[in-house]
Amino acid sequence: MKVIIIGAVAAGSKCASKLKRLRPDWDIVIYTSDENVSYSACGMPYYIAGDISNAQKLIIRTVRDYENKGIRVFINHKVEKILPNEKSICIKNMKTDEVYKDCYDKLVIATGAAPYRNIIENDNISNIFEFRTLQDGIKIKDAVLRSRKAVILGVGYIGIETLEAFLKQGLYVTLIQSTNHIMSIFDDDMSEIVQKYIMQKDLEHVKIITNDTIDKFIGLDKVKKVITKNGLEIDTDLVLIATGVTPNVELAKDAGIELGVTGAIKVTSRMETNIPNIYACGDCVEKYHIVGEAPCWIPLGSTSGKEGRCCAINVSGEVDEFEGVLGSAVTRYFDLTMAITGLTEKTGFKYGFEPVSVIINKNDKAGYMPDVKKVVIKLTADRKTKRILGAQAIGTGDADKRINTLTSALLSKMTINEFLGDDITYAPPYSTSIDLMLTAAQKLSKKLENN
Amino acid sequence: MKVIIIGAVAAGSKCASKLKRLRPDWDIVIYTSDENVSYSACGMPYYIAGDISNAQKLIIRTVRDYENKGIRVFINHKVEKILPNEKSICIKNMKTDEVYKDCYDKLVIATGAAPYRNIIENDNISNIFEFRTLQDGIKIKDAVLRSRKAVILGVGYIGIETLEAFLKQGLYVTLIQSTNHIMSIFDDDMSEIVQKYIMQKDLEHVKIITNDTIDKFIGLDKVKKVITKNGLEIDTDLVLIATGVTPNVELAKDAGIELGVTGAIKVTSRMETNIPNIYACGDCVEKYHIVGEAPCWIPLGSTSGKEGRCCAINVSGEVDEFEGVLGSAVTRYFDLTMAITGLTEKTGFKYGFEPVSVIINKNDKAGYMPDVKKVVIKLTADRKTKRILGAQAIGTGDADKRINTLTSALLSKMTINEFLGDDITYAPPYSTSIDLMLTAAQKLSKKLENN
Repeated sequence: MKVIIIGAVAAGSKCASKLKRLRPDWDIVIYTSDENVSYSACGMPYYIAGDISNAQKLIIRTVRDYENKGIRVFINHKVEKILPNEKSICIKNMKTDEVYKDCYDKLVIATGAAPYRNIIENDNISNIFEFRTLQDGIKIKDAVLRSRKAVILGVGYIGIETLEAFLKQGLYVTLIQSTNHIMSIFDDDMSEIVQKYIMQKDLEHVKIITNDTIDKFIGLDKVKKVITKNGLEIDTDLVLIATGVTPNVELAKDAGIELGVTGAIKVTSRMETNIPNIYACGDCVEKYHIVGEAPCWIPLGSTSGKEGRCCAINVSGEVDEFEGVLGSAVTRYFDLTMAITGLTEKTGFKYGFEPVSVIINKNDKAGYMPDVKKVVIKLTADRKTKRILGAQAIGTGDADKRINTLTSALLSKMTINEFLGDDITYAPPYSTSIDLMLTAAQKLSKKLENN
Repeated sequence: MKVIIIGAVAAGSKCASKLKRLRPDWDIVIYTSDENVSYSACGMPYYIAGDISNAQKLIIRTVRDYENKGIRVFINHKVEKILPNEKSICIKNMKTDEVYKDCYDKLVIATGAAPYRNIIENDNISNIFEFRTLQDGIKIKDAVLRSRKAVILGVGYIGIETLEAFLKQGLYVTLIQSTNHIMSIFDDDMSEIVQKYIMQKDLEHVKIITNDTIDKFIGLDKVKKVITKNGLEIDTDLVLIATGVTPNVELAKDAGIELGVTGAIKVTSRMETNIPNIYACGDCVEKYHIVGEAPCWIPLGSTSGKEGRCCAINVSGEVDEFEGVLGSAVTRYFDLTMAITGLTEKTGFKYGFEPVSVIINKNDKAGYMPDVKKVVIKLTADRKTKRILGAQAIGTGDADKRINTLTSALLSKMTINEFLGDDITYAPPYSTSIDLMLTAAQKLSKKLENN
C-alpha cells in the first residue's frame, strides 16, 4: 500500500507520523515544495523576536527523522497535478526542473494556506515579506536586524505577534489596518482594549493607522516608502504583509475535487474528499463550526494537528471522526493575553443567532495577592435558546485559562444556566473564589432573564 | 421580614450581601462568634509567608461595610441554641456573657467547619496552633517570627501552603503525616511527585515523616518537643495541627435538623434543611458529587461562595439550585502547582466505578519557548461507560489551566471520546499544538479500547 502526502508542515507531517505508527509496512511518501518538513510556523515570531536563538529549534522533525522512520521525503518538489483517474500525481523537482509522475493507492492533500498575494505586484522587491515558510521567517529576521523602521499591513494574530518581535528588536513600527480596529477577530469593544494597550505601552515606537491600506510602494528593488490610500507617506526599511491567508486549493480544484462554500476543500468528518482514495486535512480544508453548526474556514495549527491525526487513522482503514472546531485561539502581545473561543457578537449574528453579551473586568486572582492582574471577559449567549455562543478574554492576567474553561461547555452545547454550575478550581494565587468566567455567566444569565 | 444568618466567613457573608441586594428592605442580622466577618481564610498562608503585608487585606468587607449596607452584625456573639418551634435563637455575648433570644422569620446556618480537636488535650498550650479564624492566622504569624523550628501535623492543602509560608520565614519544618503519602487528596503516584519535589527543593529545611503521628507533646505551657507514635523525638518551637476539618453541626443537630450520611447538614439543592424556614450553606452542609452521583463533603471556599449566593436567592423567595460539586481544587508549593477535579482512582473505586487511568508528563508550552515547564497529568475514566471521572495535574508549568479545561466536561458527563473533540486554545507561549490534556485523553481512549 502506497500513500502520498502533499505538504508536511502541521497536518501533513502529523498524518505521515501517525500513519507510519499505525501501518509500519506501508510505503509513505511526502512531497513538499518547502525546504523543511514538520516545523512550527506559529513559533516564527518568537524566533524573530530573539526569544528563540536558532530557527532550527522550530523544526519538530527533520527530513532525516522521517527517513529514519521509513517515510520517504522529497523536499523542493512541487506537485503540479493530481490525476485521480490513474491515481497518480505530476511532480516537478524545483532544483532540476525535472517533471515526473508518481502513483498512489491513497493520496492526502495537506497543501495549507498562503498569504493573500493581491497587493504585491512585484515579487522581486527584496524587503516586502510574507509569513509562510520557515525560510520566510529566517529572511525576515535577517532583514529586521538590518532595519530601523517597519510597516506591518494587517494586524491579526501574525501581525500582532510580529509587532512584538519587531519591537523587541528595536524597530519603529507602523501598523496599517484596513478596518476600523486591529485584531478584528474580536468584537470592536474588545479589540479596542488591545489597541489602547499597544498605544499606552509603546507610544514612541508604534503608530496605528486604521481604515487605510497601502496604495503604493516607493522604491526600486527595495521599498523605501509606502503611500496609503488616504495619502499618508511612511518611510520604512521593510514591509510585512499580514492581511490574512487563503487556502491552497488550486491543485485540488484542477483535479475535480469539490470545494465548500468557504472556498476551502470540502471533506467529510473522516477527512475524505469527494474523490475516492483522496483525503485532505489542515489549513486547505473547510471546517465545521460546532457552535455555528455550519461550515467555516478557521485555519489554525492546533486544528491542523488534529485533522492530520484523524486523517491518518482513516487512511489506515480504521475509523476516526473530526467533529469540527470552536475557533479557539490565543495570542499575546508582551504581557497582554488575548484569547477567544466560539462565536463573537459579530460572528454570532452571521450564523443566525441573537447574541446577547456582557463584559466584565475583574481580578485574575485574589485581590490581596501581590501579582494580581486584570482580565476583561466578554461572554456571549443566544437570546432565544440561552446557549453559550462564545467568549473573548483579554488582559495582563491569566486570560487564556478563562477561555479554556469554556471550550468543553461549548462542545456540549451548554446553556448559560447549566454553565453556572461549573466547579472551577480556586486558590488565592490562581483565581477569585468565584472565578471571573462564572461572574460573567451570572451577569449574563440575569441579563437574559430580563430580556 | 427578618433573616438571621449564623456565621459570616464565606457562605454567610456572601448570603447576607446577596440577600440585601435582592431585598433591600428586609432586616438582615448576622451573629458570629468570630471577631471578623467576610474574610479570605484561604489567604492566611500568604499572610504568614509575608506575601501579604497586612492581615487586614484579607478582610473582604468589614463589619462597618455591612452596617453601611443596612445589615446588622454582631461579632463575638455565639449562638447557643436554635428553637425552631418558636422561630428564635439563644445568643451569648462573649464579651459580657449576657444570654438572650432573638426571633427570625428565616434562619441561615453557615457555621462552617473546624479542625479536628481530638489531638489537643490542653487548650492552654500557647504554641500549638490550628487554622480556623483570621485571629488564628495572626497568632501563627506572630509565633513564626519568634521561632526557628516548626512541626506540621497533617499535610493537605492547608499543611502544604503553610509549609511554604514557614519556609519563606526561614523556619526548619518537620511534616508528620499519618498515611503513607502527604497530599493524599491525590492518588499515591501523584502525591509522590509532590513529596519528591519538596525534598529536592529543600533538603535541609524540610523533613517528611509518613505513617506516623504525634503521640505526646513535651513541655509545660509551651511545647518544646513532640514524640511520635514510632518513637521519634522532634524539637520544635511551634506545632500546627492541620489534620483536616469537620463540619460544625452541633447547633443544627440539637435543633433536630437532619444530617446526611457524611455527617454534615443535609440540604436540598435550594439549601433548605428539613425544618421549614431554616436554610444552611457553606462548609457545614453536605454536598452532592456530580461525577460520583452521591453525597460527599468537600469543604472549599469556592463552593461556599456559590452556596451562599444560591441560599440568598431562595431565602428571598426566588428560585435557584446548586447542583453540586466536582471537588475541583488547586494549591501551590512555591513553583509547583497541584490541581484536581472530579474523582481520583482511589475515590473512583469508592463511588463504584471501574477507574482506568493514564499518566503523561509533557511540556506546558511549545518545547522551543524559553520558559517551557513540565506538567504531569493523570486522567481517569470509567472502564464500562468511558465517562471521564476526573483528572489530577501537578507541575511547575501551568497545571491548573489543564484541570479547568475539564470541569465543564465533567459537568456534562462527557465520555473520553467526546472530550477528544475539544478545541483548546493554542499558541507557542501557552500550550503545545495538541494540548497535554488532549494527549492524555488520546492515550486513555486507546487504553479503554484495548480493555
